[in-house]
Amino acid sequence: MEYKIAVIKGDGIGPEIVGASMKVLDKIGEKYGHKFNYHEVLAGGIAIDKTGSPLPQETVDVCKDSDAVLLGAMGGPKWDNLPGDQRPEAGLLGIRKALGLYANLRPAILFDELRDASPLKPELIGDGLDVLVVRELTGDVYFGEKHREGDEYASDLMNYSRMEVERIAKVGFDAAMRRGKKLTCVDKANVLETSRLWRKIVSEVAEKYPEVEVDYLYVDNAAMQLVINPHQFDVILTGNLFGDILSDESSTITGSIGMLPSASLGQNNFGMYEPIHGSAPDIAGQDKANPIATVLSVAMMLRYTLGLEEEAKNIEDAVEATLKKGWRTGDIATSDDDVIGCQEMAQHIIENL
Amino acid sequence: MEYKIAVIKGDGIGPEIVGASMKVLDKIGEKYGHKFNYHEVLAGGIAIDKTGSPLPQETVDVCKDSDAVLLGAMGGPKWDNLPGDQRPEAGLLGIRKALGLYANLRPAILFDELRDASPLKPELIGDGLDVLVVRELTGDVYFGEKHREGDEYASDLMNYSRMEVERIAKVGFDAAMRRGKKLTCVDKANVLETSRLWRKIVSEVAEKYPEVEVDYLYVDNAAMQLVINPHQFDVILTGNLFGDILSDESSTITGSIGMLPSASLGQNNFGMYEPIHGSAPDIAGQDKANPIATVLSVAMMLRYTLGLEEEAKNIEDAVEATLKKGWRTGDIATSDDDVIGCQEMAQHIIENL
Ligand SMILES: CC(C)[C@H](C(=O)O)[C@@H](O)C(=O)O
Ligand SMILES: CC(C)[C@H](C(=O)O)[C@@H](O)C(=O)O
Repeated sequence: MEYKIAVIKGDGIGPEIVGASMKVLDKIGEKYGHKFNYHEVLAGGIAIDKTGSPLPQETVDVCKDSDAVLLGAMGGPKWDNLPGDQRPEAGLLGIRKALGLYANLRPAILFDELRDASPLKPELIGDGLDVLVVRELTGDVYFGEKHREGDEYASDLMNYSRMEVERIAKVGFDAAMRRGKKLTCVDKANVLETSRLWRKIVSEVAEKYPEVEVDYLYVDNAAMQLVINPHQFDVILTGNLFGDILSDESSTITGSIGMLPSASLGQNNFGMYEPIHGSAPDIAGQDKANPIATVLSVAMMLRYTLGLEEEAKNIEDAVEATLKKGWRTGDIATSDDDVIGCQEMAQHIIENL
Repeated sequence: MEYKIAVIKGDGIGPEIVGASMKVLDKIGEKYGHKFNYHEVLAGGIAIDKTGSPLPQETVDVCKDSDAVLLGAMGGPKWDNLPGDQRPEAGLLGIRKALGLYANLRPAILFDELRDASPLKPELIGDGLDVLVVRELTGDVYFGEKHREGDEYASDLMNYSRMEVERIAKVGFDAAMRRGKKLTCVDKANVLETSRLWRKIVSEVAEKYPEVEVDYLYVDNAAMQLVINPHQFDVILTGNLFGDILSDESSTITGSIGMLPSASLGQNNFGMYEPIHGSAPDIAGQDKANPIATVLSVAMMLRYTLGLEEEAKNIEDAVEATLKKGWRTGDIATSDDDVIGCQEMAQHIIENL
């Protein structure tokens, strides 16, 4: 099969980690007889520099015309002082909205080889951590109407409609069915009307998944529980804003933040795939970045959008094998480890495919 | 001096912990020659049961007519299925608003005797943790206009005005001046207009405090940093919603959540004082609850509202001495400790005054 992949390398370490991951993908193509045709487009800081806009229309068009999108990272201090709607983040939010990517899947997994990197005590980690945060991505206070009256008053409308909650709830429950069959709905239903609607609809959808055990937590409590008892979680289903906070907190407790991929899915399995870490401008261009989160994002792309489960598993196994053999980039190295660069790490993963 | 203290014992363990704390306060009165006159009023679940409303007008009137308010805890499963505006939480939000308690101070302190209780690794805790979360308490999406269209659509308006941000920012910077002279402003200014205004005004107020080092973090990053590098924080200044989440997360990493007090301050040092923990209905009425968080809330009341610093310090020292001697309620006991009850713990604190 031939696949058309839109590639947004983005800023900072983006080009390196995406470049390395494309090599892994090419090797998968060779091995399994697929052809991946890449269409490179601009978004984020580099797009601001080259076109004046963080999200040129051409980028949206090419992405829409592709099977999937592979993204590196956007942003950096260079663009931090621009007005809100002209910053790299506007490109990221814009592309999520333009492509209808309403379901953000963020696995927080502890890699066995890196368990010492977790900030939590070993007894809290036990035999590992594996939480999937399912975050709604195109609604909530992120996209509600904004108002500003000079420097006197500002507002953002938090809101959800039934359709928005229903479709993300289904994604959450479907994911729970493929995993540990437990789902925790996180909201602030004791204060917010939006959350009360959210919880109501989630509980309706839950009825169609009688096998899934459902829990409801307020977001403040969830932020505590993640730290003191992370094992209670399998799938966390939550809105855009709470998901932003809790997915970062979840990935932190694994200690593996440089390793974690993410998928942002729309209709018909269309998706955009990217590492959860940022553009790390301080080490950009030095071949120091860890490509694993992006390589694992490619694996998610194979699984969720292209339906190539075997190929996805092959990449994941190769990453594990590479880690087992002791290869480490600087971010995951302990003092005894030999440190390798981004390209070399990709090379080792390829050899282990 | 005579002081008039409105007392809201509330639900669950509320009556026990408040009762125990009043004894400590009475002893302080005896020792330093003050008289504390208590006016007990109803709010929360018990008020719903007895009057049909979570916040009877009489309660508001008595509180307004007092020097300070001492609160136990509100809520419990019994009232969880009532409609939003009739639940105990509505009483809590209502009293904050009615009394104009816009500044919520939540110290997250690690008690040296309980350092093993922290979920974080010892190397992250180092020589202790002492973070003060300053949370705005009467604005934000908590109190913005709410809409509901049946089960189809719901919204809550997130908003802040200059006046609201300015006054809480001053509280934050004043607190930083009394402490480590570092303040971290937490918002989501890369997405929310409300946060952009917030950050702008905080940076204006910051100019009046040149000695304070100011940092700006996005809320998702702050949720991570609290876990991986809590020592970077001195004062965290944030809005109502983010403060709800981050103050709970902060207290969790100390491992001392049953020990932490809070103050909610309004104009002219008026304030309401309460433990940050909940009403723990499962152990209510069994003399098992830990009164320390409430006792320390009384110390905050002496300091912030009544201006009795020496008396406040006396209580805090007595709590420390009691812990040093090894006295533990069940929640903070390790397997080797003898466990004592709520009343006995208060008795030991009194003996150490
Ligand atoms: C950069 C920012 C707009 C974005 C978000 O808040 O969604 C990021 O934090 C994320 O989680 O992908
Ligand atoms: C009970 C609830 C309304 C309240 C809040 O969200 O403010 C609580 O979580 C708190 O932090 O005091």
